[in-house]
Amino acid sequence: MGLGGKVAIIGTGIIKFGENFHQSLTDMVFEAVSLALADAKIEAKQLQAAWLGCYEPMLYGFEGNSGTFVSDPLNLFPIPVTRVAAYCATGIEAVRNAALAVASGEYDLVLAIGAEKMREVPSRGSLVAQAVNRGHPVLSKGRTAPGMFALLATRYMKEYGAGEEALGAVAMKNHYHGSLNPKAHFQKEITAEQYQKAPKVAEPLGLFDCCPTTDGAAAAILTRADLAPKFADTYTIIRGIAYAVTAGYWNTQFDPSWNFTSFRSTREAAQAAYTMAGVTDPAKEMQVAECHDCFTITEIVNYEDLGFAKPGEGWKFATGGVTKLGGDLPVNTSGGLKSCGHPIGASGVRMIANIHDQLLGRAGKMQVQGARMGLAHNLGGPGAVSAVAVLSQP
Amino acid sequence: MGLGGKVAIIGTGIIKFGENFHQSLTDMVFEAVSLALADAKIEAKQLQAAWLGCYEPMLYGFEGNSGTFVSDPLNLFPIPVTRVAAYCATGIEAVRNAALAVASGEYDLVLAIGAEKMREVPSRGSLVAQAVNRGHPVLSKGRTAPGMFALLATRYMKEYGAGEEALGAVAMKNHYHGSLNPKAHFQKEITAEQYQKAPKVAEPLGLFDCCPTTDGAAAAILTRADLAPKFADTYTIIRGIAYAVTAGYWNTQFDPSWNFTSFRSTREAAQAAYTMAGVTDPAKEMQVAECHDCFTITEIVNYEDLGFAKPGEGWKFATGGVTKLGGDLPVNTSGGLKSCGHPIGASGVRMIANIHDQLLGRAGKMQVQGARMGLAHNLGGPGAVSAVAVLSQP
Repeated sequence: MGLGGKVAIIGTGIIKFGENFHQSLTDMVFEAVSLALADAKIEAKQLQAAWLGCYEPMLYGFEGNSGTFVSDPLNLFPIPVTRVAAYCATGIEAVRNAALAVASGEYDLVLAIGAEKMREVPSRGSLVAQAVNRGHPVLSKGRTAPGMFALLATRYMKEYGAGEEALGAVAMKNHYHGSLNPKAHFQKEITAEQYQKAPKVAEPLGLFDCCPTTDGAAAAILTRADLAPKFADTYTIIRGIAYAVTAGYWNTQFDPSWNFTSFRSTREAAQAAYTMAGVTDPAKEMQVAECHDCFTITEIVNYEDLGFAKPGEGWKFATGGVTKLGGDLPVNTSGGLKSCGHPIGASGVRMIANIHDQLLGRAGKMQVQGARMGLAHNLGGPGAVSAVAVLSQP
Repeated sequence: MGLGGKVAIIGTGIIKFGENFHQSLTDMVFEAVSLALADAKIEAKQLQAAWLGCYEPMLYGFEGNSGTFVSDPLNLFPIPVTRVAAYCATGIEAVRNAALAVASGEYDLVLAIGAEKMREVPSRGSLVAQAVNRGHPVLSKGRTAPGMFALLATRYMKEYGAGEEALGAVAMKNHYHGSLNPKAHFQKEITAEQYQKAPKVAEPLGLFDCCPTTDGAAAAILTRADLAPKFADTYTIIRGIAYAVTAGYWNTQFDPSWNFTSFRSTREAAQAAYTMAGVTDPAKEMQVAECHDCFTITEIVNYEDLGFAKPGEGWKFATGGVTKLGGDLPVNTSGGLKSCGHPIGASGVRMIANIHDQLLGRAGKMQVQGARMGLAHNLGGPGAVSAVAVLSQP
């Protein structure tokens, strides 16, 4: 019984992330699913069910708050298309629910798709502006995402002796990785001087510490692990996948243990996924990871919360090149949210597709040699939710 | 393998539906879950995962577009809470995804909760106004829900010789049933004269043909069928549960077979649920049903699409008293959407809880004697999506 090891990925598709003014939300869904179907060498009519991760379909596209805009362009009628929404962890949540359904035995062949359109509204009415939860006493004071994560950076740097060069190392690494990724929003390197001279958004975070606002979509085709060889010559296995909801919101009133340097949601989701996957030493067992670098400081904290680095030592992974291509544990070889952007519902599915590519040895210039197991991680909520997926070769 | 018969319901809770100005969305969630936990005689900390059906949490409560407002008041940390949204079928979709997860073997004890707050915004900015999909060429002309279903009524009446007294029979029946339900929004009977004299909303639909706008929440606790006796003396089994997405939107351009008298989504979801449940003659095998009476004409069409009546004969079930308490197949003994209202995410879970009560013989004045199997049905989208759940005694 259970989910771990029971579900396989047999095809993925990622569209070019960016300012996709030429595509509606429905257009992006159609392209991502078409790429995934072609990759899996199956027809749309073979799909038995689908899960859509989309955080705010009505804000940008008027496509409706449901999964019908996946069915409509692809003529998937009458199969069920479930829409899930889980803040910035929406993408992995879509894959997780699809995987649970496959593991139940009810469906043999299903689609997970993540998509978000974010560039076509003014900032004031945007998802980023709405994401700040106005119901809570602290957040209702208008705190923004950069402002919140700036508090994390300030406290982390003071607590552990890290300097701004650690944040800069993450930014330069992820821009370098992005320069290798033809699907990334930004595909250019930045220099240390460019990083240092960038305007500040919320001290100490500057322009290159923040991920951009982006349109994008990604899709994956799932089947039962025992059926995978029937459909595909090459595939990967979902060893563990978990989602955790914790008290969050940068608020010691809600979570007295909140210390501004670590996210319980990531620790809980990682532990649940590792247990499911039988992983005991993630730093040794993973060869590659995509983690949630909405801001450079977040990636450093993720190293620790995911068990790659000890508390207080994550920043040394960045300055020491451990997580750069060629290092011991390359992280965000796609360029991460920093270079790919963060179309909310799309990111988690995009990350899983990137790890899938790595494990199949088809990641091109981003390839990590010998990658056998990897993970994808989303953080959201703000801070209250996280999702982790561990994939491996069969 | 598969879902049918594998999952049991061991506890349910429904709050008083109505104009709940004294409760936030979070307050309603807390009350419904507390009722369900008490009914199942389990503690919140025993839950391993949860699914929330809520269509528009940000429109009314600023509680965030995710499941965190289930975790927060109940201290459910760190278990996953997945939010699903599926137009007016959101409630049953939450239960369906919870059931798939239980059937996978990953979780033994999970929560499904549906909730929606709808009364606290002016009509112009309301969910009802937003529900009209502005992306489609026909709907963008400002068609409203009553206007769309009025077209259904007009065509149905012309096609099959039904009169307005058939619509009135549904309205009077559901108001009578509502008068027996202490949780209903409206708990009063109406007379034929009141029905006839009511102001028209969209010809031929008058005030008493339309469900009201309402706040509400309902919850259910699910476990594996083989574990149910460990937790509860009495429980019900989910024999089949299905969700279908079809071309819809009252538009022959999208669906050339659309004839304004039947919903393919309901027929597909019902067939899938019946197949899963092993039901071949629903009219004979069901003793009770809750179906989606957003308008009186919808209930009549549902009789046919769910296989209770032959095409064109549904209206005779209403005028003949077949679906009234004491009749051969009582429908919407809760009072339906007509008397309970339709807080979007809550309705499907409320219906499943009502059927659960019927099968346990604890439906009070609403009780259908000898009810052994029943169904719950949601239609939404508009018309594009449907969900059907078939429950039975063990």
